[in-house]
Amino acid sequence: MSDCSIAEKLGRRVRALRLDRGYSQEAFAEMADLHRTYIGMVKRDEKNITVRNAEKIANDLNVSLSDILVFCLS
Amino acid sequence: MSDCSIAEKLGRRVRALRLDRGYSQEAFAEMADLHRTYIGMVKRDEKNITVRNAEKIANDLNVSLSDILVFCLS
Repeated sequence: MSDCSIAEKLGRRVRALRLDRGYSQEAFAEMADLHRTYIGMVKRDEKNITVRNAEKIANDLNVSLSDILVFCLS
Repeated sequence: MSDCSIAEKLGRRVRALRLDRGYSQEAFAEMADLHRTYIGMVKRDEKNITVRNAEKIANDLNVSLSDILVFCLS
């Protein structure tokens, strides 16, 4: 997976954490006050996620930002 | 330093790496194709840096993104 972009890895990591917590895409988007397709767009590199938004998503998933980003940096 | 934002820590880390490599703010901005005040604005939380831009800056400083972000996540 090392050849895919960090945005793609980040999108996958968020999706895995979301599913792990039993949130549908819609429920998580509503809770995180994001558009329903936002994470999908990040994953497909169609949206250029900011560090601040990544931090907000991490908080909404009850993980630290490093739990998300460190996974993507490996 | 744990109370300052991740953007502030990131700005400081980039500045330290830039100075360590002997780049002035102007020289680094030109090399990285960024506006001269961009990093300063990130550091002052006036600019919401994207993960992709953080990755580009890391490449221009010859470090991995984790060298920058992991420092900010501690």
